Amino acid sequence: MVANIAAAVVAAGAGAVAHKVLARKDGTTRASSADDVAVDGVAFATDPSQNVDHADAAKKVKYLAQMWPEVDARDMKTPDDWVKRHPELIRLTGKHPFNVEAPLPLLYDYGFISPVNLHIVRNHGAVPRCEWDTHTFDVCGNVPKPFTIGMDELAAMPSDTFPCLVVCAGNRRKEQNLIKSSIGFSWGPCAIGNTYWTGVPLRVLLNRAGIYKPGPGARYVCLSGPQNELPKDYPDQDGGPGSYGTSIDMETALDPTCDVIVAYEQNGEKLHPDHGFPVRVIIPGYIGGRMIKFLKEIKVTDRESNNFYHFNDNRVLPPPVDAERATEEGWWFKPEFIINQLNINGAVAYPAHDEVIPAASKTYTFKGYAYSGGGRKVIRAELSFDQGLSWKLADINVREEPRWANFCSGDKARHWCWCMWTLDVPTEWLMDKDCVEVCFRAVDQSMNKMDERPTWNVMGMLNNPWYRIRIEHTPAGARVEHPCVAGPTPGGWMQKMAAKEPTGELLWGWGGSGTPAAPKRES
Amino acid sequence: MVANIAAAVVAAGAGAVAHKVLARKDGTTRASSADDVAVDGVAFATDPSQNVDHADAAKKVKYLAQMWPEVDARDMKTPDDWVKRHPELIRLTGKHPFNVEAPLPLLYDYGFISPVNLHIVRNHGAVPRCEWDTHTFDVCGNVPKPFTIGMDELAAMPSDTFPCLVVCAGNRRKEQNLIKSSIGFSWGPCAIGNTYWTGVPLRVLLNRAGIYKPGPGARYVCLSGPQNELPKDYPDQDGGPGSYGTSIDMETALDPTCDVIVAYEQNGEKLHPDHGFPVRVIIPGYIGGRMIKFLKEIKVTDRESNNFYHFNDNRVLPPPVDAERATEEGWWFKPEFIINQLNINGAVAYPAHDEVIPAASKTYTFKGYAYSGGGRKVIRAELSFDQGLSWKLADINVREEPRWANFCSGDKARHWCWCMWTLDVPTEWLMDKDCVEVCFRAVDQSMNKMDERPTWNVMGMLNNPWYRIRIEHTPAGARVEHPCVAGPTPGGWMQKMAAKEPTGELLWGWGGSGTPAAPKRES
Repeated sequence: MVANIAAAVVAAGAGAVAHKVLARKDGTTRASSADDVAVDGVAFATDPSQNVDHADAAKKVKYLAQMWPEVDARDMKTPDDWVKRHPELIRLTGKHPFNVEAPLPLLYDYGFISPVNLHIVRNHGAVPRCEWDTHTFDVCGNVPKPFTIGMDELAAMPSDTFPCLVVCAGNRRKEQNLIKSSIGFSWGPCAIGNTYWTGVPLRVLLNRAGIYKPGPGARYVCLSGPQNELPKDYPDQDGGPGSYGTSIDMETALDPTCDVIVAYEQNGEKLHPDHGFPVRVIIPGYIGGRMIKFLKEIKVTDRESNNFYHFNDNRVLPPPVDAERATEEGWWFKPEFIINQLNINGAVAYPAHDEVIPAASKTYTFKGYAYSGGGRKVIRAELSFDQGLSWKLADINVREEPRWANFCSGDKARHWCWCMWTLDVPTEWLMDKDCVEVCFRAVDQSMNKMDERPTWNVMGMLNNPWYRIRIEHTPAGARVEHPCVAGPTPGGWMQKMAAKEPTGELLWGWGGSGTPAAPKRES
Repeated sequence: MVANIAAAVVAAGAGAVAHKVLARKDGTTRASSADDVAVDGVAFATDPSQNVDHADAAKKVKYLAQMWPEVDARDMKTPDDWVKRHPELIRLTGKHPFNVEAPLPLLYDYGFISPVNLHIVRNHGAVPRCEWDTHTFDVCGNVPKPFTIGMDELAAMPSDTFPCLVVCAGNRRKEQNLIKSSIGFSWGPCAIGNTYWTGVPLRVLLNRAGIYKPGPGARYVCLSGPQNELPKDYPDQDGGPGSYGTSIDMETALDPTCDVIVAYEQNGEKLHPDHGFPVRVIIPGYIGGRMIKFLKEIKVTDRESNNFYHFNDNRVLPPPVDAERATEEGWWFKPEFIINQLNINGAVAYPAHDEVIPAASKTYTFKGYAYSGGGRKVIRAELSFDQGLSWKLADINVREEPRWANFCSGDKARHWCWCMWTLDVPTEWLMDKDCVEVCFRAVDQSMNKMDERPTWNVMGMLNNPWYRIRIEHTPAGARVEHPCVAGPTPGGWMQKMAAKEPTGELLWGWGGSGTPAAPKRES
């Protein structure tokens, strides 16, 4: 697998890497070991040979963990004036707090393993100034043996290294905001990053505290970041005033095959401040919003976290429920609507927005990514050139060797990464005057498919309709429009359609009334 | 929960039960016990109080397990001339073999727990004539302590009882067949049944054979029915000549929270011959095709079952792949396309096909069911009266207390049953001339939704588009058409549309070209 990933990086990204300026930085890293990860007698204990040891591969991609060499001018008069960031990241919430995605083609060109520099960042406030030598976190709550642990001690414990996709639940939210404003900001289709993570399995820490199985009093693990990270304080919550926190169930925390880790390295280097230095949680297959950064507390409880953000964030409410109704009627606290696992999703990286496919070319190679949640494998990536009447199967040519594949059967092996697909298309298909749209969808092993059209929800989360690009036929070739452009920048066919609607929003769905895709009624 | 289910049955079905003729039969049953199900030290061992003990409830619904009092005339000249069957079952493959579903309103009226009499039957050949006293099965293969066990011994082992939905992967296949013929027969939307099952956990049997965890040589459990059940012999396969067999992964087999059981009672009585007497496998959340009936062999292997039907059945291939191409190009053996878990699905029971909702009425109560796979909870059931522009949230008012809810968090608790929903609708909505269609869809906790339109696949399996009923406005009221009628019986709006197409099939999807729902292209 090490060879496979290396090959994948070479095939899909290394060429591009050579042409890009990426700052290099030599950092010290501990040689992490996967040898004793699973040796604790809990659940399906197994031996480490059952997982590929990715530690070597992670070391080889250290160059993808380097920080940009200087602080961006835009950060100079903010509390983050010490954090070095890649200048090409798209800032979605102004200068501060820092919430960014990379341009999708840029990230895509690096291949299967993303540079840390271009990995999604979701910050709620100023980046906490933590020190490796002084940072500690507590393992506490309903545990027989609570303890506090520092970074050197953590890094000396048995660890595991593997690649894992991190995705914000708001990925592709801008499309939702063009239908009707949600209460979240406008992510494009690149609120993602696929990197190596190294850390101590959460269950190893829980075992050390005396927790070996779920049971009365020990049904949830509440995870919290530092106090005063967020402007509002909510003093009585888990994590304390101003902390961002959430919880996961004990079963997921303890199951070795769920691979929840307390991570201190990304791509073989210590964490970048934006990604949670010195320590964060990684919960494969889950939405990014549960992967607490700058970790300060692991608390075992008999109920979900009572942190403000656990209940008031990361929910998908039914479409008729807007923000006002949600609060008035208590929808935030209805257990059905919490979201944990990612859903099936994906997008087209090439052709990029505004790209013109030359009429004189013979073929064009479509490229993109897809992922699903809960470890489910993406089994199909498909493009339609006739608005969904028929589908062409793309080649999924870069994906990970799944986790636990030598232990679980193919059906249960865990897929924590994105996959990358390509399809060679005759240019004449695109130049055909009937070809006004190319639709992308993916399907996972449980036969979950991306939706034909979006369903608006008040947080604009887990938006996963077919990714549709529209084609304009020009003498030079087929000019491509994506649905929209990440952040406040205008552009894209959805935005144009929204502008034509009286309210400026596509209130009913993706097509806009009167468009060819809009359902019509018989009278 | 016993009280809840009793209440649910009273609310949704008992009234109806009182009006229907159901044969009563007194059978002997063993008082099964859930006390020591999980006490084996494997994985997340837990105590039995963590699950509701359904044994009492199952005993109370014994009346739902009675056989029809006499043999149907249609079965008289077949090998099944000894099997007593409910006459209202819809026969989908002629007289023999027996493959049936109940009329959906009939099943629905019984409420949450279905009568055994009206439960889906999928038989591959004549019902094997097995005897309780002589039937045995083997636990064999790569196990330290192989053994053979008879029914009395099995029934004396620790057992568990719980309600579980059984669904054929071909549920709603007739809609697929109207798009283009698949290689399966025409199930309507009632290839289901939700009953109590009592049996010994598969992992308890595996433990007895010395298997406590997955490992080299022990990664799959191959399950086979009796030899010579099927006409073709395939002598070298698992299970032997003429056996129907498949396999599941060892992780699922051993995980207590996956609830795989070797069942010998349904609704508190010994199994009906059509449902696998004397013993079958129940794999909650999976397609019915893996739940081997008339069980003869449990074989531990390092690879999937090599039974003919394991590879040549229960697959969803991509839409361009037809039967010929599948065989020529080896698609049956591509591991991606096996199906195990059910996908999100559901249907409308009321209004029934051809029902007229009186124009003079004030309101009408829509009723239906929904389910998902893998234990995922159905979190939304929705109806649209404007072809998907907006959705009304139905009340999910009958569902089970989930399994393992006191052990796993809400998110991981297992939902093995259907749920039943209702929505009161002002009749004026339906009489509005713009209301030409009512669409139903369900959403599960992983945000998987029923598809807007179907995707044809060569086996016609896991078909789960929105369930659309069409409305015809008559002076008497709103006349309702479902998409089709189960089996060879004509009827339904899809069938009418197919009849208008030159080939008699809706080759591209659910709407038919030129219909309001068909996408149009700009020129």
